[in-house]
Amino acid sequence: MSEPRPSSDHNGTRPEDFRHLVTVLDLVRSGRATTRPELTRRSGLGRTVINQRVAQLARHGLVEEGDLAQSTGGRAARQLRFRADGGLVLVAELGATSLTIGATNLAGEVVEFHDETCDIADGPDAVLGRVEALFHEILDKIGARSADVWGIGIGLPGPVEFATGRPIAPPIMPGWDGYPVRDRLGGAFDAPVWVDNEVNLMALGEVRAGSGSQHDDILYVKIGTGIGAGLVSGGRLHRGRQGCAGDIGHAAVLDDESIVCRCGNTGCLEAVAAGAALARDGTRAAETGRSSVLAEALRDRGRIEASDVVHAATRGDRTAVELLVTAAHHIGTLLATLVSFYNPSLVIIGGGVAKAGDLLLATIRQNVYQRSLPLATRELRIEQSTLHDRAGLTGAAFMVLDELFTPARLAQWLHATTPHGIPALADTTA
Amino acid sequence: MSEPRPSSDHNGTRPEDFRHLVTVLDLVRSGRATTRPELTRRSGLGRTVINQRVAQLARHGLVEEGDLAQSTGGRAARQLRFRADGGLVLVAELGATSLTIGATNLAGEVVEFHDETCDIADGPDAVLGRVEALFHEILDKIGARSADVWGIGIGLPGPVEFATGRPIAPPIMPGWDGYPVRDRLGGAFDAPVWVDNEVNLMALGEVRAGSGSQHDDILYVKIGTGIGAGLVSGGRLHRGRQGCAGDIGHAAVLDDESIVCRCGNTGCLEAVAAGAALARDGTRAAETGRSSVLAEALRDRGRIEASDVVHAATRGDRTAVELLVTAAHHIGTLLATLVSFYNPSLVIIGGGVAKAGDLLLATIRQNVYQRSLPLATRELRIEQSTLHDRAGLTGAAFMVLDELFTPARLAQWLHATTPHGIPALADTTA
Repeated sequence: MSEPRPSSDHNGTRPEDFRHLVTVLDLVRSGRATTRPELTRRSGLGRTVINQRVAQLARHGLVEEGDLAQSTGGRAARQLRFRADGGLVLVAELGATSLTIGATNLAGEVVEFHDETCDIADGPDAVLGRVEALFHEILDKIGARSADVWGIGIGLPGPVEFATGRPIAPPIMPGWDGYPVRDRLGGAFDAPVWVDNEVNLMALGEVRAGSGSQHDDILYVKIGTGIGAGLVSGGRLHRGRQGCAGDIGHAAVLDDESIVCRCGNTGCLEAVAAGAALARDGTRAAETGRSSVLAEALRDRGRIEASDVVHAATRGDRTAVELLVTAAHHIGTLLATLVSFYNPSLVIIGGGVAKAGDLLLATIRQNVYQRSLPLATRELRIEQSTLHDRAGLTGAAFMVLDELFTPARLAQWLHATTPHGIPALADTTA
Repeated sequence: MSEPRPSSDHNGTRPEDFRHLVTVLDLVRSGRATTRPELTRRSGLGRTVINQRVAQLARHGLVEEGDLAQSTGGRAARQLRFRADGGLVLVAELGATSLTIGATNLAGEVVEFHDETCDIADGPDAVLGRVEALFHEILDKIGARSADVWGIGIGLPGPVEFATGRPIAPPIMPGWDGYPVRDRLGGAFDAPVWVDNEVNLMALGEVRAGSGSQHDDILYVKIGTGIGAGLVSGGRLHRGRQGCAGDIGHAAVLDDESIVCRCGNTGCLEAVAAGAALARDGTRAAETGRSSVLAEALRDRGRIEASDVVHAATRGDRTAVELLVTAAHHIGTLLATLVSFYNPSLVIIGGGVAKAGDLLLATIRQNVYQRSLPLATRELRIEQSTLHDRAGLTGAAFMVLDELFTPARLAQWLHATTPHGIPALADTTA
């Protein structure tokens, strides 16, 4: 025989059965089906297949049976429930100057959470060392062991080559270019690791568990120290060729050569509208006395940050309001082009500066509605993030869960051919 | 029983079998698998499933067996071939002032072709009446009947709601808003019809049979009378919420209130860089004597079109070259933003103005490479369309074929529950 044959297991499970297994599992864990008849109807699979696959998932502790469902005239069906508490996912979101750590259950719900300041420029050894220590602290705190960890998800503040889990030419992460983040953490915890850009993960979090759950085509815009976007196409992340899709911070929005961006170009969106620009312009307004509120803040703490400008604006300081409106105008003008180009049904505004709320949103909306193709704005919603600071961690968990529950990985696990033995997946009937 | 059950056919074909049928058919028709062992390896399906599904496809005339394949050390396997000549797809591409008609085989290869001028503003009755007449002429010419037509694909020069096959608020198509193009043509030919925006179809054509075949994330830019783009994400068309993704013609690229676009705004890309703008500026150059070549063309034919400017530029006329370079500069500047945002691996430049070739491409490339994120341009290619005038028709055919060969539709056909009996799908063993 010249052709290799696909593996087929000892119990007679055929390769295609794992596809059905994933179909069934996806329907149960998303809550779209809660009984066998619902599974049959929604999957288009035959009843025998459904029964076999549900039994297999139950045997491995991924699905459990509950009460009889409400009868709708016929025979009552037994409720099926995804066992979200069957394992843990460890997640971390690294910003330029912050570190957020969490543990979620298998439904992506955050069960433990911690954040602290951390300078990404300290390099991968120091930063990932701290991440590992915090992961162990979290496990201790909730009384779990490394073996309970099904996967690890990491968000980084720069472009990531998703296939290898390595940062790739990240502009604000000295020492990280090409660093094997996946290998390091995978080795430390003996669990599979996935790494992506933090803004992609925020977009994913919003799609799976936030305001984007009813939308297929989404644009998530993070306005923090910098500005970046995450794109969702047909419910999937659009990462682009190098994984750097969503880089809108360096789009030219202003023909003003006096405003030099950290990238070296002039007139970049980030240089005129991001948090660092607000801090810069707010400091100037404080120093020149144009804003008494900001001048007071500068006296009190010796520096002005974007959050001071946001705070002053919400207190009605006219100069701070002007700074925010100008920033929102530039963001809105670029978004008008991107909305026509991408035709999303939802634009989500997140990040620290988004806390300015309606002041920022109103100006962004006005610019987009004024300049985008009317058809593209017909049903368009532009909203603030609902997950706020949890968007990135939630997205990191779903990145892991989506990768865990694929046919290939389930096949590997259920055959226990992986060195990493996951207790919840041990056949409980054995 | 309260729950409806999915249909299962008289021959014992289960619903999930149709998914496998499509998997097998896709591999054979794309040429990725040409033998049963290859099918087994590439699909991850079991050998029994492969044998059953290949037999089913052969019985219905979609796949035929050929010679023994070259042995690679083991037993020789019999070649499988998709029967591309088993049916026809009728395709039409409607531009603002042109109509292109064709017939393709089931592999999307154009077997007959015709084009003529046609004003889309004549409205749907006149234009679609002409399309129907030309479809019948083409069928006569190649000796085929309506019953040989498996599907119809139509490209329109405006936004289309893909799910219903209706134009939706198209700016240059008076009388077409909401017109039931699908129902009309479907009724006339008793075949399924799909309708999409022409630029989307050009992008699809390039992905399936042109320079995009090795790429997953593509931006296709058509520079004709207007300017529009088609987006491919992960190998699939990204149509956006209303099907109007790719509308880049009205992005603001110039802060010049004197250039009013047909949309009512000022400084739109289309108003400064599309074919109509070149014709306008070329006419001015001819009238003022700045270009002797264009002045001669104006004297000869009484008007200047974009193609005259392109032609004059390729003959070295300095003013015409300047006009093209200015247009390319504006296009390139916007593309720089879109490349950073979308991170494609390939940008394809098509449409009439693209015939200016390297002159246009060099300036576009220069602007993109200068201003986009370096990472996004690391492997980026910016190339001219290779399918040229056939891109739209080819894409229209693949739109139809992709929709025809889905599990649901194959299930419908193979059960002959459709009123449209397709001869090639009749069970030839009956």
